[in-house]
Amino acid sequence: MNSYNNYCIFNGVGEVIIMKAAIFKNKGVIELDERPNPTIKEPADAVVRVALTCVCGSDLWFYRGKSDYTVGSPIGHEFLGVVEQVGDRVKNIAKGDLVVAPFLYCDGTCPNCRVGITSACVAGGVWGANGIDGGQGEAVRVPLADGTLVKVPGSGYSDKILASLLTLSDVMCTGHHAAICAGVKKDDTVAIVGDGAVGLCAIIAAKRLGAQRIISLSRNPARQKLAREFGATDIISERGEEANEAVLRLTDGVGVDASLECVGTNEAIQVALAIARPGSIVGYVGMPHGVEIPVQNIFYRNVGVHGGPAPARAYMPELLDDVLEGHINPGRVFDFTTDLNDIEEAYAAMDERRAVKSLVKL
Amino acid sequence: MNSYNNYCIFNGVGEVIIMKAAIFKNKGVIELDERPNPTIKEPADAVVRVALTCVCGSDLWFYRGKSDYTVGSPIGHEFLGVVEQVGDRVKNIAKGDLVVAPFLYCDGTCPNCRVGITSACVAGGVWGANGIDGGQGEAVRVPLADGTLVKVPGSGYSDKILASLLTLSDVMCTGHHAAICAGVKKDDTVAIVGDGAVGLCAIIAAKRLGAQRIISLSRNPARQKLAREFGATDIISERGEEANEAVLRLTDGVGVDASLECVGTNEAIQVALAIARPGSIVGYVGMPHGVEIPVQNIFYRNVGVHGGPAPARAYMPELLDDVLEGHINPGRVFDFTTDLNDIEEAYAAMDERRAVKSLVKL
Repeated sequence: MNSYNNYCIFNGVGEVIIMKAAIFKNKGVIELDERPNPTIKEPADAVVRVALTCVCGSDLWFYRGKSDYTVGSPIGHEFLGVVEQVGDRVKNIAKGDLVVAPFLYCDGTCPNCRVGITSACVAGGVWGANGIDGGQGEAVRVPLADGTLVKVPGSGYSDKILASLLTLSDVMCTGHHAAICAGVKKDDTVAIVGDGAVGLCAIIAAKRLGAQRIISLSRNPARQKLAREFGATDIISERGEEANEAVLRLTDGVGVDASLECVGTNEAIQVALAIARPGSIVGYVGMPHGVEIPVQNIFYRNVGVHGGPAPARAYMPELLDDVLEGHINPGRVFDFTTDLNDIEEAYAAMDERRAVKSLVKL
Repeated sequence: MNSYNNYCIFNGVGEVIIMKAAIFKNKGVIELDERPNPTIKEPADAVVRVALTCVCGSDLWFYRGKSDYTVGSPIGHEFLGVVEQVGDRVKNIAKGDLVVAPFLYCDGTCPNCRVGITSACVAGGVWGANGIDGGQGEAVRVPLADGTLVKVPGSGYSDKILASLLTLSDVMCTGHHAAICAGVKKDDTVAIVGDGAVGLCAIIAAKRLGAQRIISLSRNPARQKLAREFGATDIISERGEEANEAVLRLTDGVGVDASLECVGTNEAIQVALAIARPGSIVGYVGMPHGVEIPVQNIFYRNVGVHGGPAPARAYMPELLDDVLEGHINPGRVFDFTTDLNDIEEAYAAMDERRAVKSLVKL
C-alpha cells in the first residue's frame, strides 16, 4: 500500500535518501517535493512509513492564508503507517507495527501528559515545523515514539477500518474533546455548530456519551444526511439569530445542555454561546479566528467555555477499541480519496467545499 | 433582635405602614429612609422581618459608581429573619420560621431551577429593583417564597452561627460556586485570587471539597491570617506577573488544578488564567468589570472559564447543614458590626477597606 518506490533515490550503498512530501509553498500552493528520507536521530525516535494521511480543516487555514505557515515547510499532521525503524530507547513500539499518530507528539510522562492533557506536553510539539516531518509525506521521523504512537493490534484491516483509524489522529478525537469539554452526559440534549469533519465526529462522540437529542447545525444536504446517520436527531439549517431561535424553540426556551463549537469563526462561537443553557459549558475546538468572548453575557448566564487542541493521544485507546469493535465509523467523513501525487487536488477539493475531508493513500 | 419599633409609623387601625430601609441616594451616598412596610401582594409571597443583613462587595460597585444603580431604590440582597406573614399558596414556609434568603429570588420549579441553576430562574429576579424590597431594611416582601427561602430548623442559635447562616445568602455560596465551576476535587492544588469575603469563603469551599493544597493570593496581613485559619496552606502576596511566577514555582511549573477568581477586575482574571494548568477551568465569580478573555491564549492552553452569579438557593441546604454541624464557620468574614441606623458607616468601613465585610444587626 506504499508507493514510495515510485520516487525513491538511493545513496551509494543502496539506501533511500530522498522521499516525497507535501510542502507548503505559499498561500494556495501545496506541492509535492523532495525531503530527506527520515532516519533515527534520537534514541526515542521511530520512523514510520506512511500508509494513509489526509487533509485537515486546520490545514485550510494555512492554505487560505488565514493563518501563518512557514514557506518551504512540510505539512500535514494526521497519519497512519508501519514502523520501519526504532531508536534504542523505544520500548512500546517495534518494527512492523501498524501505528496511528496523534496530531501532536508528546512524551506521555510530563505533568500535563500524566493528567491526560497530552496536547500540552512540555516536551511535545507539532508536525511540520522545527525540522519535524509533516504527515503528508512518505515517511515521518516520530520523536518520543513511545509517548506518541498508538499501536493497532492485529492486522488485515479493511480500507473502511483503516480510514476510521486515521480519524483518530485528529478529527474524531477533536470532536470527542468538544463533547468532553462540554461535559456531555447520558440523556443530554446536545447541539453541534459546524458540519465539517470535526462537527460530524462530534455527533458520533455525543451519541457515544449517551446524548438523547443531538441537534446538528448544518446547511449542506449531503452533510445533513451523514449527520443523521451518525446520530443527529434534529437538523437546523438556519444561521445566526435565526439558528439561535430555532434551537431555543426545540429546548423549552432555555437552550441545550451541551453546545459544541466545531468551526472556529466568531459567528459560530456566538451561536454556540447563545444556544447554551444557563450553567452549561460550550466545548470549543475550532481554531479560533477573530473570536471574541462576550464576558458580561456569558457571566450573567453562567455559561462557560472550555476547549483547545484535543489531547488526542489520551483519547485514542478507548476510541480505537470502539473503531475495531465496529461501534463507531468516523472514517465515513472521508468523501474524497486520492494519492500523494494528487495532494494539490486533495486540498483544492476541500477548499472548494467539494469534499468534507480528503483521504490520501500511499 | 429587631429594632423596628424605633421607627414604626402606625395607620388608623394600628398597623405599621412605614418601615426604614437603606436607600441608594447617589454614588457614595446610601442612607436610611422610609419605605412602605411590606405586605403580601401575591399568594406566593412571604413577608420576612429582617434580623441580620450585611453589605456585599458587589454593593460597593454601585456605591463607588462603578456600576449603575437606580437612584432612590432600596439596596442589599443578603438577609436572614423571621417570617411574619405568608400568602395563601405558600406551603414550605410558615409564620415564625427563621429563614435565610439567597441573593436572588427564584421559583424553584422552572427548567433552570430544576437543574440547579436557580440564579437563572426564568421567573426570578433581584432584590432592590422593580418594586422589590432590598435586604438592608426592616422587612422584605419575598416573592416566590417557597422557591426562594430556606428554613433554618431549630432555634436559639448563637450570634456566631447566625452570622454564618447569613453568609449563605451570598458570599459562602459564591465562593462555593467558584470552586464548583472550577471542578475542585479531592487532593487538588487550588489557587484563590482575591482575599475579600468571597475569596475567603472560596478557601472554605475548596477545603470542604477536599483540596490538598490551597494557595491564597492576598496582600493584607489580617486577611492572610484568616485565610490560613480557613485552610490556606500557602500565601502569595505578589501581584501580576510576579504572582504568576510564584504560583508556577509552587506547582512544578504547570499551574494549579483549579483557579478561583473572586474579584472581578481584569488584573485578577488575568492572574487566575495564567496560573491555571492546561486542561483546567477557572471558576470566576467576581462581577466582571473591564474583563477581557484572551481567547487565543486560553484555547491553546486548554484552559476554560466558567462562572457567574451563584445558584445560592441550590447550594444552601448542604452548606446550611455544615454550618449547623459546626464544620464550617464562614461568619468569621464579618469583622465589623453595626445596626441599621449606621448603615452608612457599614458601607464606609468596607469602602475604605477597614472591614472585610460589615454585619448589620436589627
